[in-house]
Amino acid sequence: MRIVVALGGNALLLRGDPPDADLQQHHIDAAVEALAPVARVHDLVVTHGNGPQVGLLAIESADDTTLTRPYPLDVLGAQTQGMIGYWLVQALQNALADRDVAGLITQTLVSVDDPAFATPTKFVGAVYGHDQAQRLAIARGWTIALDGDKWRRVVPSPAPQRLIEADLIARLVALHVVVVCAGGGGVPVVEDTGGARHGVEAVVDKDATAALLAIALNADVLLLLTDVPAVEIDHGLPSARPIRHTTPAELAGLRFPAGSMGPKVDAACGFVEATGKTGAIGALGDTQAILAGAAGTIITNGGC
Amino acid sequence: MRIVVALGGNALLLRGDPPDADLQQHHIDAAVEALAPVARVHDLVVTHGNGPQVGLLAIESADDTTLTRPYPLDVLGAQTQGMIGYWLVQALQNALADRDVAGLITQTLVSVDDPAFATPTKFVGAVYGHDQAQRLAIARGWTIALDGDKWRRVVPSPAPQRLIEADLIARLVALHVVVVCAGGGGVPVVEDTGGARHGVEAVVDKDATAALLAIALNADVLLLLTDVPAVEIDHGLPSARPIRHTTPAELAGLRFPAGSMGPKVDAACGFVEATGKTGAIGALGDTQAILAGAAGTIITNGGC
Repeated sequence: MRIVVALGGNALLLRGDPPDADLQQHHIDAAVEALAPVARVHDLVVTHGNGPQVGLLAIESADDTTLTRPYPLDVLGAQTQGMIGYWLVQALQNALADRDVAGLITQTLVSVDDPAFATPTKFVGAVYGHDQAQRLAIARGWTIALDGDKWRRVVPSPAPQRLIEADLIARLVALHVVVVCAGGGGVPVVEDTGGARHGVEAVVDKDATAALLAIALNADVLLLLTDVPAVEIDHGLPSARPIRHTTPAELAGLRFPAGSMGPKVDAACGFVEATGKTGAIGALGDTQAILAGAAGTIITNGGC
Repeated sequence: MRIVVALGGNALLLRGDPPDADLQQHHIDAAVEALAPVARVHDLVVTHGNGPQVGLLAIESADDTTLTRPYPLDVLGAQTQGMIGYWLVQALQNALADRDVAGLITQTLVSVDDPAFATPTKFVGAVYGHDQAQRLAIARGWTIALDGDKWRRVVPSPAPQRLIEADLIARLVALHVVVVCAGGGGVPVVEDTGGARHGVEAVVDKDATAALLAIALNADVLLLLTDVPAVEIDHGLPSARPIRHTTPAELAGLRFPAGSMGPKVDAACGFVEATGKTGAIGALGDTQAILAGAAGTIITNGGC
């Protein structure tokens, strides 16, 4: 089988931990322990989030007084692809001595006409008091919004339209290379009228990009791994119960939290509807059980 | 022909300029203008330095008070591979609409027994007064040394032994993919007795890695691009004159500045001696003339 896996950026940097490199690499090693058995028998493509990591680099860059202006988000996102990609590639190579592993810098095309550019919604970087946030908004052209009782920068999260490197990834998968790519949903780029591409100050939802990639690769399974064992009906209520097998039609009638389970459900259902193949959402540690249909939330067109 | 090109990290960040992202991307675009015509008719592999870029990230990480300790050099090097690789890949794609371009995260094996680990020599990061440098050396286990009249951290620069991703790069080149790889000489890794690899606090000379890569790829030309038109006899003296065509044997009798032209001459000669093919050193803007034998310093076994 051909399997596309998306790892959450938060899985690499646990809430409450300092954002140290060695802690993140330790979590990557644990993630790869779960993924390596899959790569031994299937073709595997691994994507990953980068929310906390790009936030850290954005703060460091904003605090760097040698710069005229902080580095833009496309450049910082590319830095996180290098860093997280390196950790994943190294751990996968150590676990899979007989397979080539490729870590690819990946760009994702978004539309300049995407309505997200007019209404930025994704928080990024540090929290500020109102006055400081207001000053930064004016000085740097940021949009700011309340995150709880503090102010933060918000940036657009346009819909991914196409992975620029999709053909290249497909060629590598055909050679049975394990591919690490589309980190942070891919570096967001737009095309000008002449066809030239350049980066934009935005972030892309990594699960939406993973779905697009899985469709482009004609994958058999899109596996969205997170820190909960399944999608739940009535999540957070006493009546909560896991959804084990379902369809996009059933899920369309339910509501899930924006910014966490909602985008995962949308991405998995989009893949299933486009391909007729299997989408799955579940816990990293259950990876093999999910692929065997024995854990997680399994989404197919036919139900079961 | 199959051509391996190494771009200097200083070519992307001119001395005296602020280390802004847009300035560096502008210089990358200019470099790609020189390289794109080569890629239209030859198989091209592009490597690049990362000295100033990894230095900037090292300072930012050292100043980040949310970290228990600064990020190690392998991780920072991987970040620069993502960033510079992204700029190069995007510019090459924009210039070469009909070619696949791959930006690969690359590791370089070094030996734990390399004498460089006992005597670190490469300056990295900020300059300090003596007392502050001394405090940092104790707090962080740094080795420090005088750089002019200021103190800086020095790190080992072990000899590259093998590119971990060499086979993968060869497979991509065979598919006529333009490959951007081995940034900053590759992320330095060592192998433990069990064969598992992990990163080390070191930097690798990018020209030495480029030579190793060119040998592994059986390249026809290794082209080391810099900001001077040729290697010079009596460099810096009134008697200075460019060396146009030469051999490793002739160059072995001359002395070149350590840390600038010396490593380039060593790398080019190493490639020529190992393969019998052509090494060349010259200015980025002269790329096509160098390949035509009409500019730069051309090194072959046979002389001319």
